[in-house]
Amino acid sequence: MRRNLLVDAERIAADIDALAAITEPGRPYTRRAFTPLFLEGRAYLEKRFKSAGLETRIDENGNLIGRRPGNGSGRGVLMLGSHSDTVPEGGRFDGIAGVIAALEVARSLADQGITLNHDLEIVDFLAEEVSIFGVSCIGSRGMANMRPPEWLERRAGDLTLEEGLGMVGGSPHASGARNDIRAFLELHIEQGPVLEADHLDIGVVTAIAGITRIEIIVTGRADHAGTTPMTRRLDALTAAARLVIAIHHLGQELAATAGHFAATVGEFEMEPNAANVVPSRVRMLLDVRAEHRRDLDQFRTLLGQAVEVVGQETGVTIAAPKVISDNPATPMHGEVIEALEAGCQATGASHRRMASGAGHDAAFMARISKAGMIFIACAGGRSHTPEEWAENADLTLGAAVLRDAVCRLDDQLATTIKETDHGTHTD
Amino acid sequence: MRRNLLVDAERIAADIDALAAITEPGRPYTRRAFTPLFLEGRAYLEKRFKSAGLETRIDENGNLIGRRPGNGSGRGVLMLGSHSDTVPEGGRFDGIAGVIAALEVARSLADQGITLNHDLEIVDFLAEEVSIFGVSCIGSRGMANMRPPEWLERRAGDLTLEEGLGMVGGSPHASGARNDIRAFLELHIEQGPVLEADHLDIGVVTAIAGITRIEIIVTGRADHAGTTPMTRRLDALTAAARLVIAIHHLGQELAATAGHFAATVGEFEMEPNAANVVPSRVRMLLDVRAEHRRDLDQFRTLLGQAVEVVGQETGVTIAAPKVISDNPATPMHGEVIEALEAGCQATGASHRRMASGAGHDAAFMARISKAGMIFIACAGGRSHTPEEWAENADLTLGAAVLRDAVCRLDDQLATTIKETDHGTHTD
Repeated sequence: MRRNLLVDAERIAADIDALAAITEPGRPYTRRAFTPLFLEGRAYLEKRFKSAGLETRIDENGNLIGRRPGNGSGRGVLMLGSHSDTVPEGGRFDGIAGVIAALEVARSLADQGITLNHDLEIVDFLAEEVSIFGVSCIGSRGMANMRPPEWLERRAGDLTLEEGLGMVGGSPHASGARNDIRAFLELHIEQGPVLEADHLDIGVVTAIAGITRIEIIVTGRADHAGTTPMTRRLDALTAAARLVIAIHHLGQELAATAGHFAATVGEFEMEPNAANVVPSRVRMLLDVRAEHRRDLDQFRTLLGQAVEVVGQETGVTIAAPKVISDNPATPMHGEVIEALEAGCQATGASHRRMASGAGHDAAFMARISKAGMIFIACAGGRSHTPEEWAENADLTLGAAVLRDAVCRLDDQLATTIKETDHGTHTD
Repeated sequence: MRRNLLVDAERIAADIDALAAITEPGRPYTRRAFTPLFLEGRAYLEKRFKSAGLETRIDENGNLIGRRPGNGSGRGVLMLGSHSDTVPEGGRFDGIAGVIAALEVARSLADQGITLNHDLEIVDFLAEEVSIFGVSCIGSRGMANMRPPEWLERRAGDLTLEEGLGMVGGSPHASGARNDIRAFLELHIEQGPVLEADHLDIGVVTAIAGITRIEIIVTGRADHAGTTPMTRRLDALTAAARLVIAIHHLGQELAATAGHFAATVGEFEMEPNAANVVPSRVRMLLDVRAEHRRDLDQFRTLLGQAVEVVGQETGVTIAAPKVISDNPATPMHGEVIEALEAGCQATGASHRRMASGAGHDAAFMARISKAGMIFIACAGGRSHTPEEWAENADLTLGAAVLRDAVCRLDDQLATTIKETDHGTHTD
């Protein structure tokens, strides 16, 4: 340990290792929500929550919650946590790091006999990753009353989500919406290369970028690759390639302005994909992340222009780009951002503000509470792979920052309850 | 009929229609080699060959041959024909047109009581299209002694090619190589748009372009599309897109010089092809057709330079383009080209010289005889599709050109046998 922190690095490492061992055999690290191994991981966490003196329960939305009562002044809840489910062949830290850091904060407060003004809740959200039901953030959406009712009918083989929620201990038809949470804090690995490259301990998240998915379909004409002169083709691939490059350049230009922006052609399929046939059709799916709506709007305008130009110059038909899904950016709460920055100062953690390009439970918690997040570095920015790695020292420092920020917010929110109760939920 | 030709348009149309009716039900036009429907088509052809007074047989290579003896002077064979097999859901004319036109020449000579100096053979080659065994031109390769022996072990389900050859009446282990063929002539639909666009009756083929397949693999790095800054990516798709455009431009430039040239990226596969992951790998397969080797060589040089530049500028790894297969161009024989042009003059057919971008049995026959081809227009240049269409008048005129050229060559080769016997086979 580089600093004399109030959290315990060895306890954190032991829990991370223990959960890493709970994985599909021969397929590390796989502990998908609604599977037996997920429930095994939950059983471990529940045991550890109880050892830390927390009262445990599964809420209506299938979230595991450990509660440490406050001083009984009825000021509501401060919540800390993340998720313990993984993608298939995922990593040891994505999600888990935040649950264990939150648990360590509770343990640290218990060790020092500190009772907060607010009740403290440690949460392991259900199914943050895209689950076997094809949807994500099931637990945090439920808590924020944002889980579409029709999702209960979604199926994974013979199982419905309704049955899955029951299986993990939830109550699918009861409302699990919360209105008593004053602040929510989440620690997560960055899943990007910035902190490591910049040699910084902590990223204080300003906003969770919006995610917009846009489909582009290019239609040319399937001709014989040997006999059709180069000048008489309608080659869908050549036109699509021009769009790929235009999209990349637009992404780079907008990323160079203020605020997080990224544009990626993540899916690209060509037909007929036969060696001796001129490509007749390309379907592309774009993933666009924007911290600021104006960047997304500008991107869409410029993309529309590029599509027109390429269509005109190549003769192929390009349908107007179609927005398949559009989730706007979620700003984190200023008061929480400041508390986390103060926590960095107090613990000596070097830090910067940054947007999250990935989605997180905190985006839903921001609808019903003052929400904030911190990132810790992960090696090479790699995530959703067994090679995913975060240093224990970084994770421990992050837990210390969380601990400090929670105590600050506990004080602040206890004294400012009247003034801040309005305005919080409309950010 | 626009002209008073010595061939019969109605007989040709009746045969084309009859063969079109022999197809997999509900899946026009499918009559793949080695299937029961192929044998049904063969039975029809054999009956028609016999009606035309031809002696029929299946040769060692599974080719159907109809023979019309010459005047007994032992001058060898003039061969005409093409193939009756189709691709799955192919057209009514690809291959068949050339078999029926050849048959019509034999019928026309019989009608007029003409006996040639050479024996005339009408051929339906076995499996010109890529067959169920994954290989093409099985019959003409065999006749030219160019069918690799190991092909006999190729399998389509439970069937080996050895068994398939036996099934159609061939003798898989007997040599069916021929050295008695003086000239080979084939009529085929163009499978390209040039004749139709230029309002020409006949294309006299100068060469069958070489086909070179080149694989390019671009390796980037799979990163999270939301969290990885645009400036810190190794995006395989963006780099591959630049190559696609470079290849298209190179193809256009070389096509604008003398000789047929075309370059097509026919296969393009991306990994991991997931919406929220930066593309990590692209595999491209290029189809390059060149009439002149120097064009192919220049293409490969410039492609190699483009690969280096794109690799350096994007940071991705691009393996040196790998030649997967390389079949050089085959020139048609000057004497046959001239005879076919004279035939066009005699019948009043407008014509031009052109290379064939597609492969044909004539490419193999050129190894053992003086070979030539003519093309007739097909609607929109479309082929290998049920919409494939050629006008009966064009096909009839093509048959008349063939008939005229065969008679010319019969005269010429009868008088020049001594001088031309050397040199013919080394073209």
